[in-house]
Amino acid sequence: MSVSRAASRLEDTLRHIVEMPLDPRGEIQAKLDGLTKPPGSLGRLEELAALYASVRGTLNPVIRDRVIFTMAGDHGVAAEGVSAFPQEVTPQMVANFLAGGAAINVLARHVGARVVVVDCGVAAELKPHPLLKLRKVRFGTQNIAQGPAMSRADAVRSLEVGIEVFEEERPQGMDIAGVGDMGIANTTPSSAIIAAFSGLPVREVTGRGTGINDAQLENKVRVIERALAVNRPNPLDAIDVLAKVGGFEIGGIAGVCLAAARHRVPVVMDGFIATAGALIACELEPKVKDCIIASHCSVEIGHKAMLKRLGKRGLLDLDMRLGEGTGAALAMSLVDAGCKILTQMATFAGAGVSQAR
Amino acid sequence: MSVSRAASRLEDTLRHIVEMPLDPRGEIQAKLDGLTKPPGSLGRLEELAALYASVRGTLNPVIRDRVIFTMAGDHGVAAEGVSAFPQEVTPQMVANFLAGGAAINVLARHVGARVVVVDCGVAAELKPHPLLKLRKVRFGTQNIAQGPAMSRADAVRSLEVGIEVFEEERPQGMDIAGVGDMGIANTTPSSAIIAAFSGLPVREVTGRGTGINDAQLENKVRVIERALAVNRPNPLDAIDVLAKVGGFEIGGIAGVCLAAARHRVPVVMDGFIATAGALIACELEPKVKDCIIASHCSVEIGHKAMLKRLGKRGLLDLDMRLGEGTGAALAMSLVDAGCKILTQMATFAGAGVSQAR
Repeated sequence: MSVSRAASRLEDTLRHIVEMPLDPRGEIQAKLDGLTKPPGSLGRLEELAALYASVRGTLNPVIRDRVIFTMAGDHGVAAEGVSAFPQEVTPQMVANFLAGGAAINVLARHVGARVVVVDCGVAAELKPHPLLKLRKVRFGTQNIAQGPAMSRADAVRSLEVGIEVFEEERPQGMDIAGVGDMGIANTTPSSAIIAAFSGLPVREVTGRGTGINDAQLENKVRVIERALAVNRPNPLDAIDVLAKVGGFEIGGIAGVCLAAARHRVPVVMDGFIATAGALIACELEPKVKDCIIASHCSVEIGHKAMLKRLGKRGLLDLDMRLGEGTGAALAMSLVDAGCKILTQMATFAGAGVSQAR
Repeated sequence: MSVSRAASRLEDTLRHIVEMPLDPRGEIQAKLDGLTKPPGSLGRLEELAALYASVRGTLNPVIRDRVIFTMAGDHGVAAEGVSAFPQEVTPQMVANFLAGGAAINVLARHVGARVVVVDCGVAAELKPHPLLKLRKVRFGTQNIAQGPAMSRADAVRSLEVGIEVFEEERPQGMDIAGVGDMGIANTTPSSAIIAAFSGLPVREVTGRGTGINDAQLENKVRVIERALAVNRPNPLDAIDVLAKVGGFEIGGIAGVCLAAARHRVPVVMDGFIATAGALIACELEPKVKDCIIASHCSVEIGHKAMLKRLGKRGLLDLDMRLGEGTGAALAMSLVDAGCKILTQMATFAGAGVSQAR
């Protein structure tokens, strides 16, 4: 596909994203307040119901079909020793996803979601598999410590990959989407992305990923500082940030978020890397924020800064840091619970329960 | 039933509670660390699996049958104007539970749990119903601002009610239990209980319950201070605390926790009132703590002090303050997710995935 066709598909998606204001006529809160519970006593479960119902444009939302997009890609910066795991783990874990043995498979089954695995840019040839979408932009990004991760055209292409896989899956049913990642070394570009947008010192947004030691963490901070100095990503141009210090799976996640916003499908973000992708989407088009839900706050310290920038707060306090979409799967079930509160509870009038004095 | 028989049943339960140390041989963590994920990366989901497996004494736990005990009782102290709702709401909400229209019904269905509703001391005659256990100790407690909530014999009886309903339900299958409450004004005794055990100032452990205003909150603080001054509950005697400033449903919740510990069934606590009940059980027999799981941290400020005293931390960050067992239901699903991680994930060896360098 040529760059110009890709760009037009992205632009077409962006053009169709509308604002999805929270409960604009107050109808959702009025309905919630008529249910047999003290007003607001279900806290953020009520907020989830309100967000979901607002995005879907209905007072009677039902969540049937759930999809987790697990986007995979590799990173040239792995050569700098920023990860505890070797790069070969990325394709190995993709195989594990396809065999159904990874954490995301277990948790997706737990909440009744299907997992869509996408090769956005794994640095290995992957065999075709009925559950795998082969959409490799490149065999991994370039080393961001030395130059841009990818060309601007490839950044657009990675966004397109996300849009395309979303559009392909939507006809099979999708009432809610989750986004997750797989990619050795991908906390490094994620830290670089939030540092680029926020201007925060790299050290304040960089953590231990899958489990590096103090010396490796020092090195990781220096590598990210170098990546920002060498590439000078423009924080006012999200595609530039993605191209200079991002990743193909991060672009793919951003693309899923854009397509979801276009089709008014609420999206649950997993942790640090998924939120980096969602952040790219929201910087490109702030209206995307309206349909985004944060699942948890990762152990990765940069995640807090991302959530703050997005104005979001995690639902689960589980100290998770795995990725794959695991937190998104668990949180999906909470969104569903919120919708069931809105649609299945008795009213004060209907149940003959007295209201507050 | 005579007091002496009741006391002996309680003592029989207490005598059979053993320590349930967390992963004493390190086998559970070893199994978790062999699964295809960075060690510890599922955070507290792994801790939940470890607690559950330790209590059940198996490396392959499966959660099938889930039960929420929703314990109801009324409080003489409601006469002091400490609640936003009139006392008639307690029996009205019990009727709502039985009709399946309350929040706990919706959320229990969501996680596949059955709800067992128990009248521990509602201040109204309740009609028999197949889903209701009529175990009324009294028609509500006495006003704690003027004297003890109940006699010591009735406190023991309320613990017994919890033990009995647990024992009755266990043969129908119970792999995990949740405890919740219904009782207008019952945040007042709950604040009194944590103030009695911790010695913290009443103001620091007293909140707005279902939604009282500033003046009502001031009054509530004074009422609880008076209850403590009038009754002088002995913090070294949990039954004395329950009798002087507790409630029948709080005693019932404590009894469920004791019976659960005896039978090594993990129990998920709901919010402030359920935790007050669990606290009574744990002060009576500290080994109970081993099988207790906190679901969320309530908006009620005294809940934090309770969780700190129990050494527990909530899983969900949802600003809930409803009770009934709602938070327990949601958290049950997380315990189940943790167990599925332990039992359904592929190993590094089995999936051919490389480990950390």
